[in-house]
Amino acid sequence: MWAADAASQALGIELEEVTAGYARARMRVTGSMINGHDVCHGGYVFLVADTAFASACNTYDAVTLAAGCDIVFVAPAHLGDELVAEARERTRFGRNGVYDVTVRRPDGSVVAEFRGHSRSTGRKILEDRG
Amino acid sequence: MWAADAASQALGIELEEVTAGYARARMRVTGSMINGHDVCHGGYVFLVADTAFASACNTYDAVTLAAGCDIVFVAPAHLGDELVAEARERTRFGRNGVYDVTVRRPDGSVVAEFRGHSRSTGRKILEDRG
Amino acid sequence: MWAADAASQALGIELEEVTAGYARARMRVTGSMINGHDVCHGGYVFLVADTAFASACNTYDAVTLAAGCDIVFVAPAHLGDELVAEARERTRFGRNGVYDVTVRRPDGSVVAEFRGHSRSTGRKILEDRG
Amino acid sequence: MWAADAASQALGIELEEVTAGYARARMRVTGSMINGHDVCHGGYVFLVADTAFASACNTYDAVTLAAGCDIVFVAPAHLGDELVAEARERTRFGRNGVYDVTVRRPDGSVVAEFRGHSRSTGRKILEDRG
Repeated sequence: MWAADAASQALGIELEEVTAGYARARMRVTGSMINGHDVCHGGYVFLVADTAFASACNTYDAVTLAAGCDIVFVAPAHLGDELVAEARERTRFGRNGVYDVTVRRPDGSVVAEFRGHSRSTGRKILEDRG
Repeated sequence: MWAADAASQALGIELEEVTAGYARARMRVTGSMINGHDVCHGGYVFLVADTAFASACNTYDAVTLAAGCDIVFVAPAHLGDELVAEARERTRFGRNGVYDVTVRRPDGSVVAEFRGHSRSTGRKILEDRG
Repeated sequence: MWAADAASQALGIELEEVTAGYARARMRVTGSMINGHDVCHGGYVFLVADTAFASACNTYDAVTLAAGCDIVFVAPAHLGDELVAEARERTRFGRNGVYDVTVRRPDGSVVAEFRGHSRSTGRKILEDRG
Repeated sequence: MWAADAASQALGIELEEVTAGYARARMRVTGSMINGHDVCHGGYVFLVADTAFASACNTYDAVTLAAGCDIVFVAPAHLGDELVAEARERTRFGRNGVYDVTVRRPDGSVVAEFRGHSRSTGRKILEDRG
């Protein structure tokens, strides 16, 4: 699925590790991500978090989609910052899941806290991409 | 401020209308926004909503930042879809604001419902931009 | 269903109006709702909003449950305040719905903004209560 | 502050443990908490979570209020169930904090996942209670 994810790859997002219910993604803030306040547009911080979330919730061989997400912006990210988003499953029930994603700078300082709500479609991942 | 927003402009987002507490933005889904499920990455749907939100909450001459946001994905957006995000102020109190943003296709069908929480810095917009 | 809702009735919540996708509930802040800050415990503000939401999302003859909710506390409520919660459907898709609930004092000042996410079970309301 | 919290005490909520950034509260589901679906009204699940959250975020000697909260209902709670809400600080920045609260039955099964957003007033707790 990652191989087909043009969106994340166009942003230079690297998926560093994926295990059951867990994923870690990395993205560098480039000039085209800077907004009118001279900091990284919150939408790009969301994007790297969302990519980690999507990877973590698709580790169970059923095509799983984001139903909704929320994000709290803790500190601004600046040009050149390398952001690391770590997604961890908090709970799963029925076809639903809740995942926590923390976006940090490499020094460990928090940029954003994201929570993703997933919903499985019931289709197998391999069939779907077949 | 819009003139300096490289992030939104690089995505081809157009700001169509801005009045007190209101903004409408438009974005076309391009190939680089497509994810591993062959639909628009939710992060780009978030981005156009967030841009409308940022514009709407900065209509009161005080530099205002996104404190947090949540989004519900109602229907997928596809390659070539033109998305229209309309942001409306719901309430303001102290330095805080709550804004509702609906992202629709031009036929009016809803793609996402977004709620943004803003916080004013207290600095004037004109001072800030020097 | 309302007749069986011991929880809302024990709090003295009155359901004033229910139409398709809409409900309005009213509750007076009593001494047992006051918290350690001498204001109404946010949980009771949540309760009256949640009751309005539950009523609004069960107006379509399918048993519908709250999947999740979020609330922003705009201003404190005090002992004796009469709170009015108005719930309005924002969008429905598949078995899901999004409802906005505003809690106000009778003078119109906002106490809280609540957003509810509903999910229909597919069972008919009359069968269920059979 | 807990001594003055009539709301939580009237519900029979017990505060079992409070340490820096952490609190655990317990509540039994009584007949007056049952809603029209014959399960515990989500508002009471919210209340026990909110009480744990309020206790956890007031462990730093500055009066701290709930700015907003969101809750996901994972499984229904029934009459007689004993619910345990554990609140843990996720991050703090400036006057803001983010706390995760999980509500469980004593067997460990999850009833709800709650996230609270706090804001400190800057006043000392002891002064405030004078």
